[in-house]
Amino acid sequence: MRKFLSLCALLSMMTAPAVAQTPPPDVAAIPPAVVETVQQLQKSALAGDLAFATVSDLTTMVGPRMAGAEQEARARAWAERYLKGLKFDAVRIEEVSIPYWARLYDAAEIVSPVPFKLYVAALGGSGPTPKGGITAPLVRFTDLNGLRAAAPETVKGKIVFIDEPTVRTQDGSGYGVGVVKRGLCGPIAQSKGAAGCLIRSVGTHMHRFPHQGGPARARDGATLPVAAVSPPDAEHLSRLMARGEVKVRLEIDVEVKDDAPSGNVIAEVRGREKPNEIVIIGAHLDSWDQGTGALDDGAGVGIVVAAAKLIQDLPRHPKRTIRVILFGAEETGLHGANAYVKQHASEVGQFIVGAESDFGARKVFRFQTRFGEAALPAARAIQRQLAPLGIGPHDNMAFGGPDMTPFRNAGVPIVELEQNGWDYFDYHHTPDDTLDKIDPAELRQNVAAYATFAYLAAEMDWDFRAVAK
Amino acid sequence: MRKFLSLCALLSMMTAPAVAQTPPPDVAAIPPAVVETVQQLQKSALAGDLAFATVSDLTTMVGPRMAGAEQEARARAWAERYLKGLKFDAVRIEEVSIPYWARLYDAAEIVSPVPFKLYVAALGGSGPTPKGGITAPLVRFTDLNGLRAAAPETVKGKIVFIDEPTVRTQDGSGYGVGVVKRGLCGPIAQSKGAAGCLIRSVGTHMHRFPHQGGPARARDGATLPVAAVSPPDAEHLSRLMARGEVKVRLEIDVEVKDDAPSGNVIAEVRGREKPNEIVIIGAHLDSWDQGTGALDDGAGVGIVVAAAKLIQDLPRHPKRTIRVILFGAEETGLHGANAYVKQHASEVGQFIVGAESDFGARKVFRFQTRFGEAALPAARAIQRQLAPLGIGPHDNMAFGGPDMTPFRNAGVPIVELEQNGWDYFDYHHTPDDTLDKIDPAELRQNVAAYATFAYLAAEMDWDFRAVAK
Repeated sequence: MRKFLSLCALLSMMTAPAVAQTPPPDVAAIPPAVVETVQQLQKSALAGDLAFATVSDLTTMVGPRMAGAEQEARARAWAERYLKGLKFDAVRIEEVSIPYWARLYDAAEIVSPVPFKLYVAALGGSGPTPKGGITAPLVRFTDLNGLRAAAPETVKGKIVFIDEPTVRTQDGSGYGVGVVKRGLCGPIAQSKGAAGCLIRSVGTHMHRFPHQGGPARARDGATLPVAAVSPPDAEHLSRLMARGEVKVRLEIDVEVKDDAPSGNVIAEVRGREKPNEIVIIGAHLDSWDQGTGALDDGAGVGIVVAAAKLIQDLPRHPKRTIRVILFGAEETGLHGANAYVKQHASEVGQFIVGAESDFGARKVFRFQTRFGEAALPAARAIQRQLAPLGIGPHDNMAFGGPDMTPFRNAGVPIVELEQNGWDYFDYHHTPDDTLDKIDPAELRQNVAAYATFAYLAAEMDWDFRAVAK
Repeated sequence: MRKFLSLCALLSMMTAPAVAQTPPPDVAAIPPAVVETVQQLQKSALAGDLAFATVSDLTTMVGPRMAGAEQEARARAWAERYLKGLKFDAVRIEEVSIPYWARLYDAAEIVSPVPFKLYVAALGGSGPTPKGGITAPLVRFTDLNGLRAAAPETVKGKIVFIDEPTVRTQDGSGYGVGVVKRGLCGPIAQSKGAAGCLIRSVGTHMHRFPHQGGPARARDGATLPVAAVSPPDAEHLSRLMARGEVKVRLEIDVEVKDDAPSGNVIAEVRGREKPNEIVIIGAHLDSWDQGTGALDDGAGVGIVVAAAKLIQDLPRHPKRTIRVILFGAEETGLHGANAYVKQHASEVGQFIVGAESDFGARKVFRFQTRFGEAALPAARAIQRQLAPLGIGPHDNMAFGGPDMTPFRNAGVPIVELEQNGWDYFDYHHTPDDTLDKIDPAELRQNVAAYATFAYLAAEMDWDFRAVAK
């Protein structure tokens, strides 16, 4: 998942409405039979194994799923087969063509003063180096602003090294700050004549793993080779640089295509009364290629599939349709989600609310919304049903998961079932993103939360846009 | 460090004397001036930075230090220069010729049913594969006994996979159990006609790092290719095998030499009255080549050097000589230590007591000895001086660190300042063994403990062999 808040998003939040303190109870009244169904769904979710079995099957039988690669096509085929096997309604693949970027080779080493192999990964959008690599002295900055302020002659011909650690936070905001350099080091360094960029991995761990990430195309047409270096390697470089000049050899080869196949995989729980009113719960199918994408975002796939399956199996479906969307190509630029909203432009007004699970597999601890103000009592009503799962209320400034961005921009109400991200950036986008990092009990709590939210949103007649817009 | 207890060692322990419950106080009386010096040493140690600075310099300016390689020669040159810079007495390199093994290339991947890159490392003593590797189905055992019991026809032509996890323990005993497969999978599998061996890494972590280890020559002349696979990869294999046959390609290239240069680096704190009575404190200079050997055994080097330096700088040296030995080629077979005891056979009777620091950088929590029984009051007296550092008493069955093995076998009394190894096997022998894993405060406590022990052993007239022998 790519979680960050742009300046614009931050500004828009500042003006967003706060949670209403005294919701009018009539708006949010939930009939006892519905509450009973919610309780039954939670009980089944907390006893179920489908989410974990789903992530296990996806990561074991498909493995890494690079957007636009044959791996991702296998994931789509897997998902279609798997969702049909679970007897969902209207299972289908909707194809999307995307720009493609993949690393073919990446390596770096200190050549002087002391030879040393560095653990690096080329970042999305990186250009290639000549064969044999580039060798240049490093110039170090402790953040992107240092690079911005640098005189071009201090950077020219050198490899820029941005050595900024990532702050550990529960809500992922430390990543939001740290990740900016991932996209901008290349273009800024290139404009100053640098030979390449190395950034300290955007991760909170201290393992010898570089953290991948980035789009399929670098911003402003930048073509500089750009790589992330593991946090311990970054500290090694820093210690050496304190003693004098450090020269590094960086070699990267990449493959780029303008059009590669991707796609979204859809399944539905068809609504019994208003099938054209649609509650969306999503996750993304693609992953970076070092790990198996268990946390990012196999867990999300498992959570939304298992939650929807519990509702699909109810004796009586909710009024509205629940649509599960497994997005393609999230990692390299939200390509699947963007295409989805374009392809379904005429349907957007029927999207009642959307949520994406894309922040790992730890428990949900808060329920956040981006609703019209008049619908806030419904937010509170849903949260009250989530409370037995240990989920508290939050504000009305939800981001909603990266693939919700085009939905949010199109005016679709959004919720965020906020997961504890305390150790998410210890693993995310590294080789360590593997199944063993998932606690099945915490995953079940997520399933219970998604089933609760999706069922209530689909069964009640709430309009989450309501007045404010 | 290679920590394991052979069956013989276990048996000998069972018959070793227990700690005396009521030590005769006269044997262990320590004059107040000596106690005062001990307290001053501890205070200085707990405020000092030399140990951490030493590990930092070694790991940054030398890096990995594979036994017999040019890297290790650089480490010896570094150590000689560094110890002379600290103004120790009698700094010298004593050269040793060793058998040499190094991995040149190692890679493995699942070829069917689903292609997947495995994180592996060739194990010490492994033979090479043909170029292009070997491809064969796996046959899985949950421990070495399963392989021992297997009919040869079930193993023939296959790659044996021993999928045994390592139990986390404070004292490293879980590693002692798990490590047996590392040395024996090759010879046993080869005797049954297997094509190769993969073992689950002997480590307590769940990271995508394979754990190195093993001697320069496989036992019984075995030539099979043998590699360790990271714990998450082992679990991936296991999940896939539960669904059917799994074929793996394993490719290894190695370099082997009969004679390669290694050596021990020595420094002394010359005794003021009995310079020929020698207290040995050691650590090893070499490391495996994926990490920088910060925990194994840069920390030990830092600890014993810093402890000895505090004593070297005392206004009055202790009566006996303290000899710091930085052993070469520990990892590939205790070659430096074995050569040392051979080269110094005539001096062994003057070795009063020995200790090696080779179990990471966590705090010392217990003081263990292998003394003659009559000397046990001295053990208790030393422990009482260590108690303010949070160090309790233990039994008289000390192993003493791997490089103490030939000393122990030659009858030299041994102590072990037992470190907390709870997370040692999360890092040891992996790329993750880097400086950032060391807590400077815990390292200082080790320096205080070694300074206390070494000073007391050198200043008091205790005979640790005493009666029992």
